[in-house]
Amino acid sequence: MKKVALLLSSGFEEGEAINVIDILRRLNISVTVLSCDKNYYLMSYHGVNLYVDDLLDNQRNFKFDAIALVGGPPNTDKLGSDKTVIQFIQEHIDSGAYIGALCSSGAKVLARNSLLSEHHYVCCGNLHRNYDDGLYVDQPVVIDGQFVTGQDYGVTIDFAFALASVLIGKRRTRSPEMDDIDWVAKHINYNRFTNYHMNSITDKSLAPHASSL
Amino acid sequence: MKKVALLLSSGFEEGEAINVIDILRRLNISVTVLSCDKNYYLMSYHGVNLYVDDLLDNQRNFKFDAIALVGGPPNTDKLGSDKTVIQFIQEHIDSGAYIGALCSSGAKVLARNSLLSEHHYVCCGNLHRNYDDGLYVDQPVVIDGQFVTGQDYGVTIDFAFALASVLIGKRRTRSPEMDDIDWVAKHINYNRFTNYHMNSITDKSLAPHASSL
Repeated sequence: MKKVALLLSSGFEEGEAINVIDILRRLNISVTVLSCDKNYYLMSYHGVNLYVDDLLDNQRNFKFDAIALVGGPPNTDKLGSDKTVIQFIQEHIDSGAYIGALCSSGAKVLARNSLLSEHHYVCCGNLHRNYDDGLYVDQPVVIDGQFVTGQDYGVTIDFAFALASVLIGKRRTRSPEMDDIDWVAKHINYNRFTNYHMNSITDKSLAPHASSL
Repeated sequence: MKKVALLLSSGFEEGEAINVIDILRRLNISVTVLSCDKNYYLMSYHGVNLYVDDLLDNQRNFKFDAIALVGGPPNTDKLGSDKTVIQFIQEHIDSGAYIGALCSSGAKVLARNSLLSEHHYVCCGNLHRNYDDGLYVDQPVVIDGQFVTGQDYGVTIDFAFALASVLIGKRRTRSPEMDDIDWVAKHINYNRFTNYHMNSITDKSLAPHASSL
């Protein structure tokens, strides 16, 4: 079973976080929600109280198959300035893990700390202008090598499917007719992804430094 | 400020619940998350621990402008068989409040308890076949009089915008160029709603017993 660590701090964007958890867990991908603060309770950007699975401090030496980051201004301010978080991400990049970053996190966590280098990425608004790192692309979801990035809350489910696609590929455990991602997209009545993302994501994930969709 | 009560029980579908909260709060609609169980902590269908705002038992006599219901099999089993919940919904229907029901809740809470009568509605899968109440329509989002229903998790943001549209209409507080719903949809990069739901929802919400989209 593939294992993803979702790193959160107080003020995280709740819709982005919960959709990522929901979609990945539906695909039988393990998601461990880690607080980067010192407490297990986190209040989201719009006032939802979440109790996380564990503290990052307790799992610093564990290696996941992917790290997921989401937006929420206080959340990405904190994560982008937290040395433990950045070291944890850097170690995962070095070990070949995937890094998924949605909304402001692509700019304020990854680019701010020069973690993208020459990889293409997307983030919300014009935050990319504040940083020299990475190659910004104005697209809903961008996969480039180890990096899977999404533009904003409105494309979260597409982002989550993209992150899942690099982890599990076209695995078919639900139906002989379609892969698990197509199956879940159909099961939840999510047409958008199938309509204009599906074909390009998996292929492009195999072509580092060349993909945006 | 319009006030919405989101009724939840253990096993609620977390993506559906949190997206509704997120979208409505972005539109400055008050959302009170009420546990229909006896405790403030609820574990969602895919294992997210949420701490709610209050217990339904404490707010039984309060009147909201709308009630929102979401899916998750254990959640809709419980809500549909809970006399306090059904009475709370019935009193709101009688007082003219809007009832939003997503996924299995349209069938397993509303139709099961004959709350829809001749109103059109949608729910997930074939659950509507189990009940005689209501007129099922196979569409992503259906607005008919007081009832706003959504088909499944994949259309949650459309459902939330539809529920918001009957509450706040075309209010413009963010920009003179577009109403608040269009503004938020654009702000979060959510194109789907604007593309094929927007024009019909608000008009049809004014025509009880006649609308599906």
